[in-house]
Amino acid sequence: MENPACFLYGPGVAKIENSPYPSITDPHDVVLKIVYIGVCGSDVHFWYHGGIGKKVDAANPLIMGHEASGMVWHVGSAVTSLRKGDRVAVEPGFPCRRCKSCKAGTYNLCPQMTFAASPPNSHGTLRKYYKIPVDFCYKLPEFIGLDEGVLMEPLSVAVHASRLADIKIGQDFVIFGAGTVGLLCAAVAKAMGAKNIISVDVNASRLEFATNFAATASYLPAREDSPEDTARAIIDNFDLDEGVDVVIEATGAETCIDVGIQVLRRGGTYIQTGLGKSKVQFPIVTLSEKELTMKGCFRYGAGDYELAMHLLEAKKVSVKSLITGAFPFEQATEAWEYTKSGQGIKTLIRGAL
Amino acid sequence: MENPACFLYGPGVAKIENSPYPSITDPHDVVLKIVYIGVCGSDVHFWYHGGIGKKVDAANPLIMGHEASGMVWHVGSAVTSLRKGDRVAVEPGFPCRRCKSCKAGTYNLCPQMTFAASPPNSHGTLRKYYKIPVDFCYKLPEFIGLDEGVLMEPLSVAVHASRLADIKIGQDFVIFGAGTVGLLCAAVAKAMGAKNIISVDVNASRLEFATNFAATASYLPAREDSPEDTARAIIDNFDLDEGVDVVIEATGAETCIDVGIQVLRRGGTYIQTGLGKSKVQFPIVTLSEKELTMKGCFRYGAGDYELAMHLLEAKKVSVKSLITGAFPFEQATEAWEYTKSGQGIKTLIRGAL
Amino acid sequence: MENPACFLYGPGVAKIENSPYPSITDPHDVVLKIVYIGVCGSDVHFWYHGGIGKKVDAANPLIMGHEASGMVWHVGSAVTSLRKGDRVAVEPGFPCRRCKSCKAGTYNLCPQMTFAASPPNSHGTLRKYYKIPVDFCYKLPEFIGLDEGVLMEPLSVAVHASRLADIKIGQDFVIFGAGTVGLLCAAVAKAMGAKNIISVDVNASRLEFATNFAATASYLPAREDSPEDTARAIIDNFDLDEGVDVVIEATGAETCIDVGIQVLRRGGTYIQTGLGKSKVQFPIVTLSEKELTMKGCFRYGAGDYELAMHLLEAKKVSVKSLITGAFPFEQATEAWEYTKSGQGIKTLIRGAL
Amino acid sequence: MENPACFLYGPGVAKIENSPYPSITDPHDVVLKIVYIGVCGSDVHFWYHGGIGKKVDAANPLIMGHEASGMVWHVGSAVTSLRKGDRVAVEPGFPCRRCKSCKAGTYNLCPQMTFAASPPNSHGTLRKYYKIPVDFCYKLPEFIGLDEGVLMEPLSVAVHASRLADIKIGQDFVIFGAGTVGLLCAAVAKAMGAKNIISVDVNASRLEFATNFAATASYLPAREDSPEDTARAIIDNFDLDEGVDVVIEATGAETCIDVGIQVLRRGGTYIQTGLGKSKVQFPIVTLSEKELTMKGCFRYGAGDYELAMHLLEAKKVSVKSLITGAFPFEQATEAWEYTKSGQGIKTLIRGAL
Repeated sequence: MENPACFLYGPGVAKIENSPYPSITDPHDVVLKIVYIGVCGSDVHFWYHGGIGKKVDAANPLIMGHEASGMVWHVGSAVTSLRKGDRVAVEPGFPCRRCKSCKAGTYNLCPQMTFAASPPNSHGTLRKYYKIPVDFCYKLPEFIGLDEGVLMEPLSVAVHASRLADIKIGQDFVIFGAGTVGLLCAAVAKAMGAKNIISVDVNASRLEFATNFAATASYLPAREDSPEDTARAIIDNFDLDEGVDVVIEATGAETCIDVGIQVLRRGGTYIQTGLGKSKVQFPIVTLSEKELTMKGCFRYGAGDYELAMHLLEAKKVSVKSLITGAFPFEQATEAWEYTKSGQGIKTLIRGAL
Repeated sequence: MENPACFLYGPGVAKIENSPYPSITDPHDVVLKIVYIGVCGSDVHFWYHGGIGKKVDAANPLIMGHEASGMVWHVGSAVTSLRKGDRVAVEPGFPCRRCKSCKAGTYNLCPQMTFAASPPNSHGTLRKYYKIPVDFCYKLPEFIGLDEGVLMEPLSVAVHASRLADIKIGQDFVIFGAGTVGLLCAAVAKAMGAKNIISVDVNASRLEFATNFAATASYLPAREDSPEDTARAIIDNFDLDEGVDVVIEATGAETCIDVGIQVLRRGGTYIQTGLGKSKVQFPIVTLSEKELTMKGCFRYGAGDYELAMHLLEAKKVSVKSLITGAFPFEQATEAWEYTKSGQGIKTLIRGAL
Repeated sequence: MENPACFLYGPGVAKIENSPYPSITDPHDVVLKIVYIGVCGSDVHFWYHGGIGKKVDAANPLIMGHEASGMVWHVGSAVTSLRKGDRVAVEPGFPCRRCKSCKAGTYNLCPQMTFAASPPNSHGTLRKYYKIPVDFCYKLPEFIGLDEGVLMEPLSVAVHASRLADIKIGQDFVIFGAGTVGLLCAAVAKAMGAKNIISVDVNASRLEFATNFAATASYLPAREDSPEDTARAIIDNFDLDEGVDVVIEATGAETCIDVGIQVLRRGGTYIQTGLGKSKVQFPIVTLSEKELTMKGCFRYGAGDYELAMHLLEAKKVSVKSLITGAFPFEQATEAWEYTKSGQGIKTLIRGAL
Repeated sequence: MENPACFLYGPGVAKIENSPYPSITDPHDVVLKIVYIGVCGSDVHFWYHGGIGKKVDAANPLIMGHEASGMVWHVGSAVTSLRKGDRVAVEPGFPCRRCKSCKAGTYNLCPQMTFAASPPNSHGTLRKYYKIPVDFCYKLPEFIGLDEGVLMEPLSVAVHASRLADIKIGQDFVIFGAGTVGLLCAAVAKAMGAKNIISVDVNASRLEFATNFAATASYLPAREDSPEDTARAIIDNFDLDEGVDVVIEATGAETCIDVGIQVLRRGGTYIQTGLGKSKVQFPIVTLSEKELTMKGCFRYGAGDYELAMHLLEAKKVSVKSLITGAFPFEQATEAWEYTKSGQGIKTLIRGAL
């Protein structure tokens, strides 16, 4: 069976070519016909640089894509929870299930993780048919579209960060970055009962979107302000007493990281989900003196997709307004360019017909 | 009553002068006759710079000293647990007991903390008589000397860090710095059941002391190695698989901080107790990708002195070998200079006669 | 100054008599003029039995009342956060602030707690003027009435139980008992994001109130059903898969406790807040095999009143509809009888004029 | 290949018969030649009653045994960590790896667990050859005998209970029951740094063994004492102030459970690992008023065998002295009878030759 896929051969070189149809060998696997694929900042980075860390090699092209939704096309013999035609969201990383991390409840840290679109040879979701263990498929209720289903991936990133942060009802919260993940963090924080939810970004129109979407307030830092000044301004502006309880940093920008630490109250919690420069200037003495807790945050793990699904089903979070268009499968590279240009929030690619 | 005290007037200027005898107003207070005062790196910094952050002012000289032990001299009317002549260790910071931090079990984060020897006007323990709430005195068992009692303070720093780290039996542990606090962290980690306890320092003779004292192994980083190289060398040298479970950083040095993050396994825990430059180059992407937990660590709080006392009483930790001499009260400045010169581990000053 | 108070002399014997005006000795204290006092099940028990555990003695009559709100009448010299005329809710138990429990963040477990209306000599709030440390007063915003302020006490009980339960967004929850505390637990669980909130009670009209107030569903157990049957019926009725995530038991009834354990999923959490018979038949093997966590729950502690206030201020919980009348100060015993008769939900007593 | 196995047909009826040789189908499986099988109280219960809960059926006899050690006989194609001849301890329950419990780090709660010797058709380890996923085999270091390897199972039970209890250095601890699991709980508590470790049992000779083995003290309850009296006596005898920090109950006896709750300090932790009557009289008001945490405890899970192995390797726990004999394979029923008679501590059965 034909299985067209979009292969990246290196920076700026992508081709749609046939790939093998994924035959089921494990009885718990299912094959999906992919309906939508989301474009994420990392896809753009791959398109421009051929990878992040590990690079694609022209001799070993990689199928792109990790955000996806689709319809069940074929089920393994042990699958009872899904059947052909079911509409599902995809969790695109499959752990080994046997190592210490997997057994300990942190499968996102599995060293043998097979994650979609990871060089050299873990291919992605940007193809017609895609095989996946059934327990990494999440059936969509009727009233949630397959386009919205794609957003389950960034929503699960936000859920993972917010659960690591253990946001409690009544807490004050600052989110740095008003892109897809930052917006969804604000929405999850709201659903978790946060009091003040302050979105910080350098883009005023994104901030406007953020306050309409979920944030209770927004702050546009003045370019000339030091991190200390910005933190002080946020605290004073919003009457935050000693500082906020929780920060999630979703930009990776050095300045935001610094402000994030400064804006916390003593004993507060900081989550780093944005990725940027590998090393940054960091206010470590402030971390010590305020006895802060800081956690790195990597993808999503046990229970994150389930909670993301609950948030959509219970209408505690809506992702519809984040979707700003869909390109045909054949125009994947244009979808990447469009995203690169800063247009839209979440751009989709339609599955191959 | 005469109460001679050692006042710091500014960098390099200290004088022994009389100070008011501390009359008891709160019935839960006791007055101690101080017997020993410890010299800590921060005392030396005060002596050279006039303070850390806030500085001493010649118009408002400050009584130095925060590590101390003494004998009960006078007790308030509500005190039942101690009586005149009892030998006690001093916890030298008194919180307000009323704020959110105090009530929530984190009194070390009390914004109204009265901590010994903090400019401008919170005087220290380097005087003959010192007043203290009874619940911040810890009675020493007969077999523990008042000189050892002084070490309760740095031991409580180590206890606080180790409890924040939540070191579990069987875990692998790296401690950066083999000064008093680093050595005591190794000893506490051993008492908590850590498996490998690796002491890292740039001073070979300290490392030798460390392995005799509590560490199971030591590592002297090569000057020319990058943080990544050093971390890799530690992991390979000691066959640590993916990395260690817990790091406590007790130097504040930028390189050690970086190595500390690199040497951890995925999901590991990092505690920052050393204070150095206010901002450092920090490997934030590694923190994220390994989903590490990093905690600042500030002094000591609820239960720390109690656990420190248990460790001494049960002979799970011995501090005797760390004590490397005692100067007379009148030679306090010489004790600071001696410490500054890198001699000894923990130098004491005798109380005024 | 006159300070009329309602003294209990023993079962069924209460008299309004003058009591000393509470002069301020601690500069952090304030004196309140009490405006409303709430009637709680324990007041009724005192009225009928002369106490719970420790009993009132005719030679040592006890001023009743522990739920209260009032106006600031007099402030100590160190008080800056309140001034005469401020309207406040009362947290009616004052810990020693010095013991291990207090310092460790669990002041509700302080063995030297002074709790309102505890025999033999800790008098209550059912009097004209009442002295209280300022940090146990909670200023009411303008739009919250002093009658509602009284409900801060049972709301804090519910907050404490819900925080011990650590109810997470999306979790399924069963609350046993639809009295004041049970209703408020349902409301707090809703605010915390619980999915199914099932109220269980033997009184159909209370269940109707519960679903109008906060619960998403209710269940009236059949008298003839065993605990196992009832648990199974709840699970099947509401399609709860393996069972619910969290139970709060607010009745103290043996059968409810048993059903509560049976209705939980493996690994679930059970909180006991209701008090009934001191010993009950308890399904301990089920607790073991499902590896449940069960926690006792005692009053309220650090942060509970603050969170209760946030819930009211942010209108996440409304207590207005629970208030079912107010008796004059002189008719306190009638208020107890009215409550005893099962009428109303929360009955108030007005402060002495 | 012949694979003799000991089948239970019902109460008192066991036969050694051939069973199929377990051919490897999953490449991660290994086949062991069993060398020792341990006898546990539940084996004796099976022998007398035909099962616990679910019963064996004469038409569907069950291979007995769940404690075991053996030598690797055959390895699947994906196995790299073990090879033929390696000596291993067996973790005898294999979870599905796919359900919520497995992914969340609590595989011991997996509803699809395949546990050795569970009716109707999950056969046990009392046979010559036994197949097992490689990640449930634990390689024994040279200096640990295969007889000791059998004790890894009850040691992991003790580790699991102690980790649930989160025993901290310096805490006071009471263990009810001085059988294999109770003794090992005392040893693990000691390794974790507990201060007082008090063994309670009704058998004086077991108590003597306990204090030689790991406990710091022991207590033989007086038959005529109420639970309250016994708890008070323990507290007074060992000068435990308000009570102990942690209790593990390893008997399942109603009285011990009651004493266990009474002997705890406010805020203490209680772990139920012993199984007895399904329902007991339980002091629930004490649980509430002291705000205790009580946890059920079921088998062992992620990391427990690893920690058990560390304890043996590091010689923090020794199990040698618990082994009180080994019966030949053909005399399995005699081993059960011997255990039933109360003789010995841990009796073994040798694997089939």
